[in-house]
Amino acid sequence: MIQRYVYGSPLPTEAVVRDLPVLPGDPECLTVRKDASSISFSMPLEPDDMIFGLGETVRGINKRGHVYRSWNSDDIMHTEDRQSLYSSHNFIVISGKKRTLGLFLDDPGEVIWDLGDTSMEEIVITSLNGDLSLYVITGDSPRSVSRELRGLIGKSYLPPFWAFGYIQSRWGYGSAEDMDSVVHEHRSRGIPIDGVCLDIDYMDQYRDFTWHPEKIPDLAGLVARMRRENIHLIPIIDAGIPDDPEDRACKEGLEHDAFVKREDGTLFRAAVWPGLCFFTDYLNSRARAWFGSLYRPLLEAGVDGFWNDMNEPSLFYSMEGINLAYSVADELRGKNLRVDDNWKLQGTFAAVANNRDDYKSFYHDMDGLRVRHDKVHNLYGYGMTRATMDGMHAFDPDHRFLLFSRSSYIGAHRYGGLWQGDNRSWWAHLKLNLQMLPGLNMCGFLFTGADLGGFGSDTTEDLLIRWLELGIFTPLMRNHSALHTREQEVYRFKSWENMKNIITVRYALLPYLYSEYLKAVHHDDLFFRALAFDYPDDEIACQTEDQVMLGNECMIAPVYVQNTSGRVVYLPEDMLLVRLRAYNDMDLVPMKKGHHWVDARLHEALLFIRRGCCIPFASGKIESTVDIPDHPLYLIGWDPDEQGYTLCEDDGISYLEGTERTLKPSDPALKDSVIIRGDVQ
Amino acid sequence: MIQRYVYGSPLPTEAVVRDLPVLPGDPECLTVRKDASSISFSMPLEPDDMIFGLGETVRGINKRGHVYRSWNSDDIMHTEDRQSLYSSHNFIVISGKKRTLGLFLDDPGEVIWDLGDTSMEEIVITSLNGDLSLYVITGDSPRSVSRELRGLIGKSYLPPFWAFGYIQSRWGYGSAEDMDSVVHEHRSRGIPIDGVCLDIDYMDQYRDFTWHPEKIPDLAGLVARMRRENIHLIPIIDAGIPDDPEDRACKEGLEHDAFVKREDGTLFRAAVWPGLCFFTDYLNSRARAWFGSLYRPLLEAGVDGFWNDMNEPSLFYSMEGINLAYSVADELRGKNLRVDDNWKLQGTFAAVANNRDDYKSFYHDMDGLRVRHDKVHNLYGYGMTRATMDGMHAFDPDHRFLLFSRSSYIGAHRYGGLWQGDNRSWWAHLKLNLQMLPGLNMCGFLFTGADLGGFGSDTTEDLLIRWLELGIFTPLMRNHSALHTREQEVYRFKSWENMKNIITVRYALLPYLYSEYLKAVHHDDLFFRALAFDYPDDEIACQTEDQVMLGNECMIAPVYVQNTSGRVVYLPEDMLLVRLRAYNDMDLVPMKKGHHWVDARLHEALLFIRRGCCIPFASGKIESTVDIPDHPLYLIGWDPDEQGYTLCEDDGISYLEGTERTLKPSDPALKDSVIIRGDVQ
Repeated sequence: MIQRYVYGSPLPTEAVVRDLPVLPGDPECLTVRKDASSISFSMPLEPDDMIFGLGETVRGINKRGHVYRSWNSDDIMHTEDRQSLYSSHNFIVISGKKRTLGLFLDDPGEVIWDLGDTSMEEIVITSLNGDLSLYVITGDSPRSVSRELRGLIGKSYLPPFWAFGYIQSRWGYGSAEDMDSVVHEHRSRGIPIDGVCLDIDYMDQYRDFTWHPEKIPDLAGLVARMRRENIHLIPIIDAGIPDDPEDRACKEGLEHDAFVKREDGTLFRAAVWPGLCFFTDYLNSRARAWFGSLYRPLLEAGVDGFWNDMNEPSLFYSMEGINLAYSVADELRGKNLRVDDNWKLQGTFAAVANNRDDYKSFYHDMDGLRVRHDKVHNLYGYGMTRATMDGMHAFDPDHRFLLFSRSSYIGAHRYGGLWQGDNRSWWAHLKLNLQMLPGLNMCGFLFTGADLGGFGSDTTEDLLIRWLELGIFTPLMRNHSALHTREQEVYRFKSWENMKNIITVRYALLPYLYSEYLKAVHHDDLFFRALAFDYPDDEIACQTEDQVMLGNECMIAPVYVQNTSGRVVYLPEDMLLVRLRAYNDMDLVPMKKGHHWVDARLHEALLFIRRGCCIPFASGKIESTVDIPDHPLYLIGWDPDEQGYTLCEDDGISYLEGTERTLKPSDPALKDSVIIRGDVQ
Repeated sequence: MIQRYVYGSPLPTEAVVRDLPVLPGDPECLTVRKDASSISFSMPLEPDDMIFGLGETVRGINKRGHVYRSWNSDDIMHTEDRQSLYSSHNFIVISGKKRTLGLFLDDPGEVIWDLGDTSMEEIVITSLNGDLSLYVITGDSPRSVSRELRGLIGKSYLPPFWAFGYIQSRWGYGSAEDMDSVVHEHRSRGIPIDGVCLDIDYMDQYRDFTWHPEKIPDLAGLVARMRRENIHLIPIIDAGIPDDPEDRACKEGLEHDAFVKREDGTLFRAAVWPGLCFFTDYLNSRARAWFGSLYRPLLEAGVDGFWNDMNEPSLFYSMEGINLAYSVADELRGKNLRVDDNWKLQGTFAAVANNRDDYKSFYHDMDGLRVRHDKVHNLYGYGMTRATMDGMHAFDPDHRFLLFSRSSYIGAHRYGGLWQGDNRSWWAHLKLNLQMLPGLNMCGFLFTGADLGGFGSDTTEDLLIRWLELGIFTPLMRNHSALHTREQEVYRFKSWENMKNIITVRYALLPYLYSEYLKAVHHDDLFFRALAFDYPDDEIACQTEDQVMLGNECMIAPVYVQNTSGRVVYLPEDMLLVRLRAYNDMDLVPMKKGHHWVDARLHEALLFIRRGCCIPFASGKIESTVDIPDHPLYLIGWDPDEQGYTLCEDDGISYLEGTERTLKPSDPALKDSVIIRGDVQ
């Protein structure tokens, strides 16, 4: 059951798709305190209460014991003390023996979530806007509460099937030669691949909707050549439009009056990659429609996937900010600086980026409603995602396109996917990215995945292998890294064949993964779940934070530690271990409920199938998603019931309804099935 | 066996205490490559090779799979990609089925340790100086190889017994009132404590060897008042001496010609807390003796413990560096900065701190040998530690003093302890600090411990409790935090009684911990060891990185994860679990070899005693180390042999030889002993 309460004058976020009646008064479960402009909601925590949700955030699956801050931030250091990342997803579920309770704050401004940090025994949620809709959701389990929320916020984005293929990316790829080389290195070795990303260097001087005239002389030709190799090109688009009258997007944007302005009506400018930029008012439907139209030349050239970046928005500096920094520097110049002044000098240039004063200095026109940016800050990336997807639908309403964004807010999950941001080549981030998945799913973001191998810092061969072993299970499976870091395409490494073999497992699993993805979309369900969702009465399962449930039949337990040949896994029930080395090389080990040391050498991924279930695998070696229909399925399971597995399918590219069919273990057509029967000792 | 090889002209580091003959040629196990000035040593790695050592470094106990860099650095972000921390300890042990091999590079310049990072199958160690002594140590186990090294580098520092008591510290304590209040809050609640640290604010304008005239009007009176409460004051001393003719240390230093100089003979200056400073030439014996004499007024006032800081040395900026930054800023001022120029501007002020060019711009006079600083950079903190301890010995040769430093090099372990640097209130650092301990011990640094609760960032109540549960086992047990972070004295928290109870466990354990510490000092042994050292044939033990052996009888397995009521522990043999809540409240659970889920609620610490062993506990509640002799001992063990436990003792304060006595389980005098006999099911 969902109860809606309204405080102040909520802004039109379009996060929800159902207009619920507003209840009078305050929810019984919360103590409400109003301040001059802010409002806070508090409630006591029971010792056994766990807190799930909050989407893209640092720390564990259970979010209890930290202060989080909804404020979309371009901050590359995702250490555990961080309060904000690129997205803000204002939904939590509090779950304990006494109750299960969901709270969704539809509030696009800054919200502070003190989840048992200041006091271990209390939650305090503070909205600095004081204008919001609060949805209180009750249900009999965290999964059902999450489903209620999902029903309220609308169906999740459905990408084309090819977007589930392996994607190679790197900041630095900019030319047609780069693309050809990357594809050649994969295809010539038989490493499966479906897409290659173009990062900012493909543009002409970092200007959106341009391509470098020498590096990519014939875009349509390149796209067509790639397509013959079953490769999709996926260019990046940034939020800022350069202040340059020679720039087409800039000229058009000025003509369309599409950019955000300061209080005095002058245009707001701040620097991003190409220098000083204007920023499209994505909260205005007219500006959104114009921006969406800018993708058309790329779409016409055959591009059918994009990633939107820098849309928190990331601001390197404004002229006001940088001039202030210079004046501080002038004041301190030549002085013998004791520590306070030294820090002031050090801090002044660092503070020009993503400065709060800049975010308070411009306004949106929300179709007639003028709103200062900081009040709606967390909507900006959402608006860009929506503009893009609307533009693609306007270009071709019948086909699905790939789109994923860095910044988002609940609502954006209907228009595109989300990658897990600019992580680093840290083992700690392999674990963090695993732990983010259930919370992102709860907030509707099903199409997601991490930069495999890590974006910042230098990867190592073993870290990349282990990360691929997680990536084969995430809907978005992209290897991406930053300029000046170690090159991390799999073919750079001595053990590339092991990595290739792991990627072949991804393709063998795709029928199952895609089917579970479709079910999660259609039934507002979770592709990834905390073990606590499935085994609420099992205290150890509830505390297990380095394993997650995948789909309805499986659990994954990746290795996220260096220099190990296995790990301890907790099985909350009997499960069949599938130790995966390649599409055609795996061990099947039925295991009883409990703790186990499970061998997992560097080139071995771990999948666990619940006893009583079976899942389909595609047979044979597959190098691209287009080949999958040609590969017969077979089942693997331990004591599956005769119902077998219900496979959801569709054509993978249109919005035509899909089909369901039952794969039964007894079906002689599934002749390669491996079904294990009976108890193990 | 130790073999010594010499390359180039090694500098006199005084890391070792034995002058070994130099062997001709190169060691058989290494491939040696010489470059213009650098030299590198490489060897292939076997798949099962583990690498231990390197002292204070990030990442796991097994150092394989990363590049480390010996270059003492004041860097507060101890993330896993960091190559350098505050100290450099150039000793590793490579251990696998094929061989056990130690390598010690006595080289005080920059050394790069590529331990299977660039290639997973190779170690490459590069000395940028090219001048070094290389010691190749063979033995039948990592422990015996470590002992060989320890015999070469000399006995580890022995602090007074009181230094093993609980110490409270915070950046911000500066006045006599602060001291009185902290002590009162502990003593009035019966929270055991033996020392309080004074961070930089006790000084007059951050000037070493001063104290603030208003905040501490009567230093000797304060020290005496504290001593009546059995509290030792531990002031901080920094490396830089302010360039101020009014400052006594500055004046004396100039008179003694004790400061480092540039190539042209002018004094080198760089800013630290008090602004521009001179830097004592700790590599010169005359300057060292002078600097050591500066402690005398504080010693005469009764201070008997110090911590030395900022001695990498940390340099906030030099005039040359900051002027360069200003010139870059001038060049870019007013321009529309595309990304490269923006980064240049951002980076230019950040780069003034700890700049390599500054470290190359001054020289040491190593008793007649003129050496550019960067060639001997890693000796600087060592020299300061030595100056301090020599000064204290000159003041009173018969008594032991507490001293711990931030920066060090092998050799400094003979003169003082080391705290694990400016960590953060991260669960990840609780684990990191555990994982650092065995490597530090291998390099001779036995007296060590982390800032409990974390230095930077805000702690949480549960993190502090868990960190105390590790801290009760480390020789240095100090709660320390940074200015502007959440106050983290235990009495600030609702569950302070649980924390107090955990601290009482520390005092009950002190007879055992001190005895094992003495054994480790006297026998060149390890107080903390990787499980791989004790169970080399147990593959799972070798890979267990979140548990360490403590002394000869015990293993610890702290909880380092939030929101959990226990953890999985691997027992490499039968062990007795001692689940500790207070000195008089514990569970004893005999457990068989293997993996176990072990309950450990928030206020419960875990200790494991090997079956066949017993260890002594002091009975009764103890609030200060001075009380310990009044508290009778008792034994706890599971099937201990009749030899019982050999207790090492001394008077805790002088250098007089200690005694050994055997505590037998059958001794009726140890009447409170709890001895468990026989098998468990």
